[in-house]
Amino acid sequence: MFFHRQELQYKATPDQPDAVYARKLQEVLGGQYGEITVAMQYMFQGWNMHIPGKYRDLVFGIGAEEFGHVEMLATMIAQLLEKSPLGITEEAVQADPAVAAVIGGTDLQHAIVAGAGARPVDSMGNPWQGTYITASGNLLADFTSNANAEMQGRLQVARLYHMTDDHGVRDMLAFLLARDTMHQNQWIAAAAELREEGAENLPVPSNFPQNKEHREVSYQYLNFSDGQRASEGPWASGPTPDGNGEFSYHEGPTTSAPMPPPTHPDSRFYGTTELPNTMEKMAGATQDKLKKE
Amino acid sequence: MFFHRQELQYKATPDQPDAVYARKLQEVLGGQYGEITVAMQYMFQGWNMHIPGKYRDLVFGIGAEEFGHVEMLATMIAQLLEKSPLGITEEAVQADPAVAAVIGGTDLQHAIVAGAGARPVDSMGNPWQGTYITASGNLLADFTSNANAEMQGRLQVARLYHMTDDHGVRDMLAFLLARDTMHQNQWIAAAAELREEGAENLPVPSNFPQNKEHREVSYQYLNFSDGQRASEGPWASGPTPDGNGEFSYHEGPTTSAPMPPPTHPDSRFYGTTELPNTMEKMAGATQDKLKKE
Amino acid sequence: MFFHRQELQYKATPDQPDAVYARKLQEVLGGQYGEITVAMQYMFQGWNMHIPGKYRDLVFGIGAEEFGHVEMLATMIAQLLEKSPLGITEEAVQADPAVAAVIGGTDLQHAIVAGAGARPVDSMGNPWQGTYITASGNLLADFTSNANAEMQGRLQVARLYHMTDDHGVRDMLAFLLARDTMHQNQWIAAAAELREEGAENLPVPSNFPQNKEHREVSYQYLNFSDGQRASEGPWASGPTPDGNGEFSYHEGPTTSAPMPPPTHPDSRFYGTTELPNTMEKMAGATQDKLKKE
Amino acid sequence: MFFHRQELQYKATPDQPDAVYARKLQEVLGGQYGEITVAMQYMFQGWNMHIPGKYRDLVFGIGAEEFGHVEMLATMIAQLLEKSPLGITEEAVQADPAVAAVIGGTDLQHAIVAGAGARPVDSMGNPWQGTYITASGNLLADFTSNANAEMQGRLQVARLYHMTDDHGVRDMLAFLLARDTMHQNQWIAAAAELREEGAENLPVPSNFPQNKEHREVSYQYLNFSDGQRASEGPWASGPTPDGNGEFSYHEGPTTSAPMPPPTHPDSRFYGTTELPNTMEKMAGATQDKLKKE
Amino acid sequence: MFFHRQELQYKATPDQPDAVYARKLQEVLGGQYGEITVAMQYMFQGWNMHIPGKYRDLVFGIGAEEFGHVEMLATMIAQLLEKSPLGITEEAVQADPAVAAVIGGTDLQHAIVAGAGARPVDSMGNPWQGTYITASGNLLADFTSNANAEMQGRLQVARLYHMTDDHGVRDMLAFLLARDTMHQNQWIAAAAELREEGAENLPVPSNFPQNKEHREVSYQYLNFSDGQRASEGPWASGPTPDGNGEFSYHEGPTTSAPMPPPTHPDSRFYGTTELPNTMEKMAGATQDKLKKE
Amino acid sequence: MFFHRQELQYKATPDQPDAVYARKLQEVLGGQYGEITVAMQYMFQGWNMHIPGKYRDLVFGIGAEEFGHVEMLATMIAQLLEKSPLGITEEAVQADPAVAAVIGGTDLQHAIVAGAGARPVDSMGNPWQGTYITASGNLLADFTSNANAEMQGRLQVARLYHMTDDHGVRDMLAFLLARDTMHQNQWIAAAAELREEGAENLPVPSNFPQNKEHREVSYQYLNFSDGQRASEGPWASGPTPDGNGEFSYHEGPTTSAPMPPPTHPDSRFYGTTELPNTMEKMAGATQDKLKKE
Repeated sequence: MFFHRQELQYKATPDQPDAVYARKLQEVLGGQYGEITVAMQYMFQGWNMHIPGKYRDLVFGIGAEEFGHVEMLATMIAQLLEKSPLGITEEAVQADPAVAAVIGGTDLQHAIVAGAGARPVDSMGNPWQGTYITASGNLLADFTSNANAEMQGRLQVARLYHMTDDHGVRDMLAFLLARDTMHQNQWIAAAAELREEGAENLPVPSNFPQNKEHREVSYQYLNFSDGQRASEGPWASGPTPDGNGEFSYHEGPTTSAPMPPPTHPDSRFYGTTELPNTMEKMAGATQDKLKKE
Repeated sequence: MFFHRQELQYKATPDQPDAVYARKLQEVLGGQYGEITVAMQYMFQGWNMHIPGKYRDLVFGIGAEEFGHVEMLATMIAQLLEKSPLGITEEAVQADPAVAAVIGGTDLQHAIVAGAGARPVDSMGNPWQGTYITASGNLLADFTSNANAEMQGRLQVARLYHMTDDHGVRDMLAFLLARDTMHQNQWIAAAAELREEGAENLPVPSNFPQNKEHREVSYQYLNFSDGQRASEGPWASGPTPDGNGEFSYHEGPTTSAPMPPPTHPDSRFYGTTELPNTMEKMAGATQDKLKKE
Repeated sequence: MFFHRQELQYKATPDQPDAVYARKLQEVLGGQYGEITVAMQYMFQGWNMHIPGKYRDLVFGIGAEEFGHVEMLATMIAQLLEKSPLGITEEAVQADPAVAAVIGGTDLQHAIVAGAGARPVDSMGNPWQGTYITASGNLLADFTSNANAEMQGRLQVARLYHMTDDHGVRDMLAFLLARDTMHQNQWIAAAAELREEGAENLPVPSNFPQNKEHREVSYQYLNFSDGQRASEGPWASGPTPDGNGEFSYHEGPTTSAPMPPPTHPDSRFYGTTELPNTMEKMAGATQDKLKKE
Repeated sequence: MFFHRQELQYKATPDQPDAVYARKLQEVLGGQYGEITVAMQYMFQGWNMHIPGKYRDLVFGIGAEEFGHVEMLATMIAQLLEKSPLGITEEAVQADPAVAAVIGGTDLQHAIVAGAGARPVDSMGNPWQGTYITASGNLLADFTSNANAEMQGRLQVARLYHMTDDHGVRDMLAFLLARDTMHQNQWIAAAAELREEGAENLPVPSNFPQNKEHREVSYQYLNFSDGQRASEGPWASGPTPDGNGEFSYHEGPTTSAPMPPPTHPDSRFYGTTELPNTMEKMAGATQDKLKKE
Repeated sequence: MFFHRQELQYKATPDQPDAVYARKLQEVLGGQYGEITVAMQYMFQGWNMHIPGKYRDLVFGIGAEEFGHVEMLATMIAQLLEKSPLGITEEAVQADPAVAAVIGGTDLQHAIVAGAGARPVDSMGNPWQGTYITASGNLLADFTSNANAEMQGRLQVARLYHMTDDHGVRDMLAFLLARDTMHQNQWIAAAAELREEGAENLPVPSNFPQNKEHREVSYQYLNFSDGQRASEGPWASGPTPDGNGEFSYHEGPTTSAPMPPPTHPDSRFYGTTELPNTMEKMAGATQDKLKKE
Repeated sequence: MFFHRQELQYKATPDQPDAVYARKLQEVLGGQYGEITVAMQYMFQGWNMHIPGKYRDLVFGIGAEEFGHVEMLATMIAQLLEKSPLGITEEAVQADPAVAAVIGGTDLQHAIVAGAGARPVDSMGNPWQGTYITASGNLLADFTSNANAEMQGRLQVARLYHMTDDHGVRDMLAFLLARDTMHQNQWIAAAAELREEGAENLPVPSNFPQNKEHREVSYQYLNFSDGQRASEGPWASGPTPDGNGEFSYHEGPTTSAPMPPPTHPDSRFYGTTELPNTMEKMAGATQDKLKKE
């Protein structure tokens, strides 16, 4: 169950409205790596988790915080939109290019659809969608996904920080940056703990018996481009992070197989299947089949 | 530039057709973590990369291999569909439930749209889309995203391995599993190298001056759920992975702020703004504005 | 802020697993009118609301409950999936059509992607998306949207009730049905209160001066189909619900206007614009323009 | 069957082109609550309706009108785009910010894709989609959905009215506003008639026996937020609109249940399931299963 | 304007219900090449057309017919769903695999969402969307798109013909096949007429002066794969269909250029830009910039 | 397999950055008819093709080239974004409208998400998706689709040519225009060859026996609009392009059928089915059914 308190985790009030910036903030509210994503991602991981205890308490504990960040951003955006221009006429635009410029930079649905309110979309107006989240049941994979989400998220907030000089906005972003710092560290610590405890290891999923994979290519760097310098990296020689092998470097594939012959499905799929003479015969066959039906 | 060779990296021929399994394989061809995703993700990372050398050669070198995996899967799927049922009638279904069962389990567009061919969709028929990929320009964030993609990918292939006993299919999956093992190891090695070289570090983006974030909450675990055991994890005490702080544990938020008052945008947005008496006045104001227009 | 408690509002445990039914339940978790929709819809209405007090407390109070319903459904779905089949082989399917049938009826991503876990999608696998919600700032419009959402939601749960005879599932559905009953009544009461208080009225938005619309067609039923019986309804004669007019009935339109002539945009859009002779001249003009560039 | 007449229901000609406004109008053509939505929604309701007579004639009669509104808007948009800028160069933009401003405010696909023509998208460029419509077969639910659609639609047109001072555009909007007034009244009258006739009632679906729902919570207002004023509304006490009960007010849930224990699906899903020691045993089990395969 | 007549263009009644087939028919109702697509496509082409007369009358004349085909299919689907199973229990499924099989093959939203009604989706449940249509303003391009749409459409109907033996369904499909035959012929004739009249020609857009393109590669077949037999086609030698050149055949590219050096955007984008030593300097620069802010 | 060479097919370097134009170019990179579409479309056609030889070599040969065009565009876009503005403040915008204008015209995700890099989206920010491609297995249909894609593509590039005067950009566009010229000619030649060889013919699919369609309407132009001039076209009289018939012209439909009566599905779908008295009876029946359950 969720309980809502009409307070924010941190203050979210701009010095002044800025409808153009409101649109930019939508990215970290409703974008691929926005707060809705992490809130939903952590909660679904919790609901699907197969073990009780510290890991499940962790995803629930943080997931609920993220819903509060959704709220901070939505509240901020509504305030940034408070003086959003509406009564804009062609004449005004002609007279003052700045007016048109501002409109060009706003999310038009902020005005037309939400009446100067926040929306569950990203900065280009794409609606948030369920495909943004990851909850596989495998915790090492998922905590790596979480770490990535917090990195992309903090990166975007850092960029947004430089797109405004409003002290109120920057103050809130400074708070979110700090929380993203925490969450990056936390997921990396949690992933390490999983490996430490032996609950999961590399390569994910570590329970799948590696003798069932084609081990001869399990640690080969295969270079399908003509850049030569990939051979200089630690992924081209030396021991592998999973502790099970040694990297080797190869130009291009070390295996190959001929393409299988083209398929010949039922002629009633009406694919183009054969050359003319054969076609006639096949057409005959089709007609026969059809007559039978 | 890309050059195509009419050979496969590994053989991709099933022992026999299986239209139901063809649909399942679509997940790792065209799903969120399918081969189209990693192929496109690595290439866009290369095109957007800001430094020449080993990291760019790496993403190009592997990205091109992944396009070849798309091809292996598409080729396999087309063969699995070769005996795909088409001339199915109500009578047949009534007579033999297995026939209906098979149809229920297939991707109907395999038959109706592609004429027994592969499609750029996942196992539930959702089309592949550009939002599946990540290419931020920050390499530590992106390599973490890549490691996650390879983990989720290998996990899905391992699950698919147990959904068939066709030796041809399993043989190809055993090859893909091995390559995913390599790629997991490789991205983790590459992320470590970035930190080693000091090109990037935690928290991402490491160049953003941490004194600009609210450092007092940068390493606090804030528990917004009532599970107590999150306090037992290494994310609740001890040094942080970024080497810049110490974790601490707190029940709930350590900060809070009152919700700002509701916004009052232009009355011509026709939001519900005030109680009746005020409304009348405001309506008057609106009418005045309207008269002026 | 949101606080999570590791309890459910009502018990959500099936008598036994049923992977096919798990997929059906996804509709009311992640579909157009599922619980994610109402949770997000009420919260965004709260964040965008322009007045403090009972209406805002109402949307916040119920919105948080709905997140708990998301949790109940996700928890239930995970349990329904607990015996989800995975190691399914072609032979098994051939031998037992029921096995194939079950697979045909499941959400394949439940198995391949989520490892027997719930997902933020509907019963056909479409991801939840932000376009499902409505938060316009106008409360009479939005409460009508809310009433509709609860009606569609209860209707779907009622249908789902008949698709299982599992007592645990039905027990949970019986709880959700009751809450939907409450919420339907509540939004209708809230909409009535808005009109009662004069905060908003019909037609929405009631502040827009009706003398600015073409009032001659404001209450005309115009019949664009050839069915005659629409004239028998209370929408074809008598006073209108907004109290401002009288319905009248008309066969087809009461107004019409000639289509404006086709447009002639800049020839460099290369639309097909004119007949040949003219084309040559225009082509000349284009060439002239191009030469100048 | 549908017959097209090359006339408009009302004149749709702007005083002058305005490519920026053309984009805004797309919202009510191809947005969530645009004319394509209502046209398709009413028609699908008609095709799925289970009773002949006045209600079916009603949805068909109005649905066809709405297709004509799609046409009016598309025609208007094409004219607004007639002078759409194309030959725009960097120099021109540098010299005259207004030029850049205008471009920033336009739908770029109007120019690049449609050659100065209308498109089936909303004001942010999202394509119209089938999930926007509602046709459930239950008429009270659907007419409530229709009333909401007309409210949201009229609200958006009213906002758009203030975003231009072009007399031609405003004249057309004044016509659409009037029709939306009619349609709001009509659906509310139709919903009332359904209840009057006893064809359907609250709570929807009214045929589902209420003794099968958990009636003890059917009329409880449960406050999951800490706002106190929701208790003041008519949804917190007094008789319920469905005539079947009395509202009561409660702080938080009146029921609760412990979370069920985590699920343990087949280990071959490779979810993270147990602590290390158990893991080893389970891994052994998995290996056994695998050996058998 | 559109007028609706409560008659169908051809009878659309199945001999008996078949919920599985109802789902398949959705493909040609709401799929990429379904009837909604062609109806909308032709209408938008008409609304965007730049010349009055025979071409515009053509798209309007056929577009309205296609809306009638949408209606025929929706009506047929509703009837196919008339005996759609609902009260299905686990026991029933266990007892009779055919029951489960049927459910696996149905569109679950037909039941849960539409109450046994048609929906604006394809056979895999993806909602129809605006991106399916093409209306560019260039008639030769668009009529080629139309010809393709009618080819894909007839192909899908032909496949669907073999997926049922219901005489009523086949009778309707036989009608649609004939109309698709007409429309294929018609668009090919219309495309030929455009070229005949000189209104448009190859290459589209024919008004763009070809001396502005790099004519040296305008007729080169460049083989980027290693298949040798493409050289045997009429696209590898001989005169070109546009009458302006001669095809030639080449293995691989005839031109190439070095990749430009990586970009160096503003360091506040926090991309990974340089090796460590340089990084430190750059970080210094960033700090300077930040201090100034 | 695919091999990548770190060279471009043609130089792709702008004279100077232009973040607004970068967004426009996204249309031909990631739009409906962008380079990703044709690359994927031709490859899927190859993987699904049923005959070896010249046609398959053709789609593979060109498909790989198109991936190189994706790369040229992505590289160009990254360079156009090199000076992309980031540190933009409200003050700066107020002071210089041109700054705001530029921002309004950019893809905000170029900055916030990709850090001044290219993205797999169109010019309005919609992600590329799998539904853009066509690969049906029928080559005449698919080559017609390919011809259309190249026409729409060249048309869009021609329009984009006039939206810049940057010589570097225009030089690259001039190259792409030439290749589109080639590809249009090539697909038209290939479609002609298919007919020449008798591998496929009109109407597609030509193997479906035309005596199974309702031939009486196979060549009738049916005018469902009131424009009279469609009768003047070559689609209204004379021989048909497929060589099998004669066109004829008709006002409106030549056939019609009454609408079938409304459907009556299981009452537990809770659709609105009957008038009150009947309702009661039916409700009774429902209750009976429910009691039995």
